[in-house]
Amino acid sequence: MEKLQSTLARITPVDKCKEEEAQKYLDSLTKPIGSLGVLEDIARKVAGITRNVKPSLPQKTSILMAGDHGVVAEGVSAYPQEVTPQMVLNFLTGGAAMNVLARHAGAKLIVVDIGVAADLPEHPILINRKIAFGTANMACGPAMTKTQAVAALEVGIEIAQQFIDEGTGLFGTGEMGIGNTTPSAAITALYKGCSVADVCGRGTGLDDQRLQRKINVIEKAIKINKPDPRDALDVLAKLGGFEIAGMAGVMLAAAANRVPVLLDGFISSAAAIIAANLHPHAAEYMLASHLSEEPGHAAALSLLNLEPFLHMKMRLGEGTGTALAMTMVDAALKIVHEMASFSEAGISGALA
Amino acid sequence: MEKLQSTLARITPVDKCKEEEAQKYLDSLTKPIGSLGVLEDIARKVAGITRNVKPSLPQKTSILMAGDHGVVAEGVSAYPQEVTPQMVLNFLTGGAAMNVLARHAGAKLIVVDIGVAADLPEHPILINRKIAFGTANMACGPAMTKTQAVAALEVGIEIAQQFIDEGTGLFGTGEMGIGNTTPSAAITALYKGCSVADVCGRGTGLDDQRLQRKINVIEKAIKINKPDPRDALDVLAKLGGFEIAGMAGVMLAAAANRVPVLLDGFISSAAAIIAANLHPHAAEYMLASHLSEEPGHAAALSLLNLEPFLHMKMRLGEGTGTALAMTMVDAALKIVHEMASFSEAGISGALA
Repeated sequence: MEKLQSTLARITPVDKCKEEEAQKYLDSLTKPIGSLGVLEDIARKVAGITRNVKPSLPQKTSILMAGDHGVVAEGVSAYPQEVTPQMVLNFLTGGAAMNVLARHAGAKLIVVDIGVAADLPEHPILINRKIAFGTANMACGPAMTKTQAVAALEVGIEIAQQFIDEGTGLFGTGEMGIGNTTPSAAITALYKGCSVADVCGRGTGLDDQRLQRKINVIEKAIKINKPDPRDALDVLAKLGGFEIAGMAGVMLAAAANRVPVLLDGFISSAAAIIAANLHPHAAEYMLASHLSEEPGHAAALSLLNLEPFLHMKMRLGEGTGTALAMTMVDAALKIVHEMASFSEAGISGALA
Repeated sequence: MEKLQSTLARITPVDKCKEEEAQKYLDSLTKPIGSLGVLEDIARKVAGITRNVKPSLPQKTSILMAGDHGVVAEGVSAYPQEVTPQMVLNFLTGGAAMNVLARHAGAKLIVVDIGVAADLPEHPILINRKIAFGTANMACGPAMTKTQAVAALEVGIEIAQQFIDEGTGLFGTGEMGIGNTTPSAAITALYKGCSVADVCGRGTGLDDQRLQRKINVIEKAIKINKPDPRDALDVLAKLGGFEIAGMAGVMLAAAANRVPVLLDGFISSAAAIIAANLHPHAAEYMLASHLSEEPGHAAALSLLNLEPFLHMKMRLGEGTGTALAMTMVDAALKIVHEMASFSEAGISGALA
């Protein structure tokens, strides 16, 4: 709890003066004002986060949190739970989509076993910080104890802090956990104040009947657990998951250290809702990446006041959207570093 | 005219069997079916275009066509015409947004003077194929003669063919030309059959009064010239521009040679409308990149049945959207080459 509290205490608002300074600089470059759109938004936002108008191209780390969910006993996923450890092994051998896209982005990929329901082998890119062999079934009671929820948040904080200390300047958040759109929909529905059906999707591919079952299970979990939205730790413990808590911890550590952090899809954004409700300025350090096909994702991002810029119709998770977005962050910073100004290039301004 | 005709004669439909084969292969990889969304769409489409399910990462060339427009005499642009050659010089010294983003994408950038209203210096990345010192004022008569329009199309064809012969496997199309959202809006309104006001935007930054003037000018140009939408060459000559014709030529050569070509924003998409109306299968070789802030862009893409995937709120042109999209094409092809299949990774399938 102490590490969580001290991290929260270090989070301050981003620097709006640096954002203005960055925009002023962008406006001096050889293009119509504002015409690079989101690339300018990213450059401005990174300036406010890092307190640096011309930050170097960041060292990039993708943290992929893996955990299992007791609620899969209710039949809420199209794939069996054994796929979680099988996919972790796939990450370790480099054959998953996220391996390919992290390499593409030039990001270091780290996998964290924060609660997989199986023993996993030692491996250079796998960090073993298992809290338990999966959460409890939230349809019958809290998914985690509060102690477990805090421990999982602190795993994220500690790992992110370690990479920041080693030079990471941009994080991607990703996850693997069969069943984890279920807790994500529960968290989003609770904070959005909307019906579960509005934010509950087919995950990896449910049919109509199973989708209805999933909705019923989430409604039951909220009813039984009575999570208090004013207490994000209570919500996280009752409706969350280990990987969701771990990602929220990464986001809090990023904010405390003035490092930008990219959100991926629905599950990553549910973690962001928890982080944003643990600290009112945490969301200022987040960048949205893509808009997922999961119907709850747009609702989750709206709670964070974040707008995604990649419309790739993806619904894979793992951090795949953040990897693609990292190339856009690099592009935005290269614009800042490499473009000529109107005066340097001797170009006429707009007509009066 | 002969080069144009022979190029059109070589365009065939893309290979739908190769597309199906590609999708089948994508479905065998370790991810839920279809969960990589647009990355899968790109990989499938490139397979159909190139007739190769696993094409190598393409050598990329961005062709930036520069030309001037007589219609700027009507006051349709926020910037003076001298900015066109000034920006070309900026491209040659490497300080424009497109220089930065082409380098980011690993693309070779080539600038073509196809009709700039000024003399330009010799430079290794500048190809001088000037048809004239700008088009005529379309508000008073045809922008080009038919001979000029064909010549400009053939400049695009010849330059694209040269780069294809040297190994280019993916084109980006870009442009520079003060005033060129005006012909683009004229072409789009004509083919969409909608009012000019619906597709006419502020370009580099017009105020309300000048926007209304721009709309009036386009309406007058259509009324005076009576372009025949069934004859795309007639439309191109009367309402187009040299750089629009040149880009359309690049698109036709790409289709004839089974090479994918990325569209940028509004002007590039207006060129694509011309190409698509010159040959019914030309659009099958095109990929949309971003959705521009110019209000006519969505209308132009809908005419081509293409959907953009980058929502970056950009409105700069130069090919900047294609450069960002090239990184997505590379990502899609890396997915095909590098991901493991379910059987290779020993991962369980979906529950029955």
